[in-house]
Amino acid sequence: MTRSTPASTSANTPSEALPATPDYDAWPIEVAIADVSHTPRQVEVRWEDGRVSQYHSIWLRENAADASTVNPDTRERILDLSRLEDWPTVDEATLDDAGALVVVFAPEQRRLRFHPGWLRAHDYTHLAEIDAPLPSAKHWKGSERDTPTTLDAQGWLDTDDDPLVPDTCLEQALEAVIGEGLVRLRNLPTAPGSLDAIARRIGPPRATNFGTLFDVRAKPDPDSNAYTSIALPPHVDLPTREYQPGLQLLHCLENDTVGGEAVMMDGLAVAEALRERHPEHFATLTRVRWCYANTARTTDHVWYAPMIKLDDNGDFDEVRIADFLRGPLMAPFEDVEPAYAALMALQRLLREPEFALRFSYAPGDLVIFDNRRLLHARDAFDVGQGGRRWLQGCYLERDEARSRLRMLRRAHRRQRVEALSQG
Amino acid sequence: MTRSTPASTSANTPSEALPATPDYDAWPIEVAIADVSHTPRQVEVRWEDGRVSQYHSIWLRENAADASTVNPDTRERILDLSRLEDWPTVDEATLDDAGALVVVFAPEQRRLRFHPGWLRAHDYTHLAEIDAPLPSAKHWKGSERDTPTTLDAQGWLDTDDDPLVPDTCLEQALEAVIGEGLVRLRNLPTAPGSLDAIARRIGPPRATNFGTLFDVRAKPDPDSNAYTSIALPPHVDLPTREYQPGLQLLHCLENDTVGGEAVMMDGLAVAEALRERHPEHFATLTRVRWCYANTARTTDHVWYAPMIKLDDNGDFDEVRIADFLRGPLMAPFEDVEPAYAALMALQRLLREPEFALRFSYAPGDLVIFDNRRLLHARDAFDVGQGGRRWLQGCYLERDEARSRLRMLRRAHRRQRVEALSQG
Repeated sequence: MTRSTPASTSANTPSEALPATPDYDAWPIEVAIADVSHTPRQVEVRWEDGRVSQYHSIWLRENAADASTVNPDTRERILDLSRLEDWPTVDEATLDDAGALVVVFAPEQRRLRFHPGWLRAHDYTHLAEIDAPLPSAKHWKGSERDTPTTLDAQGWLDTDDDPLVPDTCLEQALEAVIGEGLVRLRNLPTAPGSLDAIARRIGPPRATNFGTLFDVRAKPDPDSNAYTSIALPPHVDLPTREYQPGLQLLHCLENDTVGGEAVMMDGLAVAEALRERHPEHFATLTRVRWCYANTARTTDHVWYAPMIKLDDNGDFDEVRIADFLRGPLMAPFEDVEPAYAALMALQRLLREPEFALRFSYAPGDLVIFDNRRLLHARDAFDVGQGGRRWLQGCYLERDEARSRLRMLRRAHRRQRVEALSQG
Repeated sequence: MTRSTPASTSANTPSEALPATPDYDAWPIEVAIADVSHTPRQVEVRWEDGRVSQYHSIWLRENAADASTVNPDTRERILDLSRLEDWPTVDEATLDDAGALVVVFAPEQRRLRFHPGWLRAHDYTHLAEIDAPLPSAKHWKGSERDTPTTLDAQGWLDTDDDPLVPDTCLEQALEAVIGEGLVRLRNLPTAPGSLDAIARRIGPPRATNFGTLFDVRAKPDPDSNAYTSIALPPHVDLPTREYQPGLQLLHCLENDTVGGEAVMMDGLAVAEALRERHPEHFATLTRVRWCYANTARTTDHVWYAPMIKLDDNGDFDEVRIADFLRGPLMAPFEDVEPAYAALMALQRLLREPEFALRFSYAPGDLVIFDNRRLLHARDAFDVGQGGRRWLQGCYLERDEARSRLRMLRRAHRRQRVEALSQG
């Protein structure tokens, strides 16, 4: 190892002197680099708080921020590693006066600088300690709580919607949606169509054959059970699509009906209970592909998938439950009876009161929920005697919620960078 | 087994006498039921062409079409199997005068009729013989063909767009998109924005932060390399999303530039070649999750996924390749060097001429391609001397193409039902 100690560094190094990063983000330098050493294929960085990080030469080379690597106009990569003469290796690794890591790469003999705040934030030798990851899914049962996480959004729609500006209400809402799968905002406007502006504070809505905004109320000639006043069992929307919409927004404009309470439950908690109580049924539902179908008058959506989807690590990825949107099971003959036995075990579990969170919609309420995770249901409601119940809904991808939350966090990082440079 | 032989049946039985089906579809009776027998948990159907099919009692019960099972207004299921007193079994199974299967179920003592055309179409004892499934993916190399499958769409936009009416041009286009991942239509209008009407013949476009329709041309202050005139390596669009858009449409309005040829290749053929030539690199790329990032000025989309995704059967599901949209690899330390070695093997393969299909865009051309399967690229182009190149693009989900193709096939089935009833 060749070792190099810095000239002088400080967390408050003026940002003018720091190298560019390969992105538009702001990276505060809360810990400076103490010294660096290298072998041909690795650079080792020792931080002032004692952490030691290693970076591979090829990783550093591909993530440089200079104009041979990143298009300066778009911040998108232009380097094609396989066009380099050889595997990039380290000839020199030092610190410069601004506290940046400076590496000279062979065989190019290219000198590249790395921003210490960016390096620390992307320290893959300490993946488990990455700062402030997005919230992970915390399972819950309705019996453990009285209401959804609820925020007062009075006046929120009148605030600045510049994505570069902090927004505490939206940040808390997105944290809840990503972690708990559900949030409720209250005291929003009740003008029909205002959901569009609300949704676009997060991102562009996802249009479907039901439109961009859809009206949930009893209507003549319904093309979905949702548009009747009958009870709906716990379900996700549009399981008939390869990728069910990630988020659903429901905005209450009017409600003076009797009945029709909202029922929400965490599909992951239900799936977890099925795994504990009936492991063989759980295994069946992660394996057998059911048919989800909406063979309507003018569209014909069909998709085949398991009811419970696990990711490569065996963790929950999504649930796809909606009895009224299932078509005929087209599975191998020997799977049919086990599949139905497992389905009925799940149906019984879905009726247990411990999972359900029940609440009523007041005009101005908005719920945002993860449609690949939460199941929603409703009791039958009575529209006799002039009662009206009118919700408007739309879909968004979960990507939009994550992007928006990252932008809100970027705003905080920018504030920290400014505070450190003034400090 | 209790055996029952029909009174009399014929393929031409008037449809008035036939039972409802649980959907809106038309099911021609091209083969009638010869006789039926049953055990408590199965019904066996022998067809006039000799095929023997078995249906489980519980499957039949859940797929009945009467008003205790299906909401007659919406054709969506209302039956909850787990609320039945017991597992449904067969007390009687017979044929009626219309040729329908009639089953009396215990313990309900409910008599339900099944449409023979529907039963034959959903014969899960012969899954491999299901009539006319959607096309499966046929891999191809550019060296095997001169052009994309190409259709003349002159006048097509002026034809009736009623989804109940047959449309040969659209049907052939969707068959090619689903099977080959690519189709080209020529002689379409070149009015800016006409892509919206074209796309909506298939289904609603998917909006993103780049808009619903996006313009691909060199522009000042670009937020993507796509909006410059530089060469783009083979890539999919928006790999930074949990679910990359399924289909991309690119519509040429103007093109008199020098260079800028379109290059398309079948990502599945490239992945297959990698599997054959470098199995260890292939395995790495199906396992290691790369970071795809578009940390733009006002949005921050990030997703982690392997470059090659296999489904539960080990078949190809999708590719996610776009070097200029990758963020820093955040993988376990020991995966980093093997990941880069595999990436470079793939990059070299992507440059081999055998995979690429090259063609030029003429005004009025539209290509539709599977954005989770095909890679598209372009050479640098020269907009000097007043040359212009203007494509409009949009995204659609693959669901929409499948739904639309099913509707076109439903139109054919309706014609067959009518022909049989008149025959």
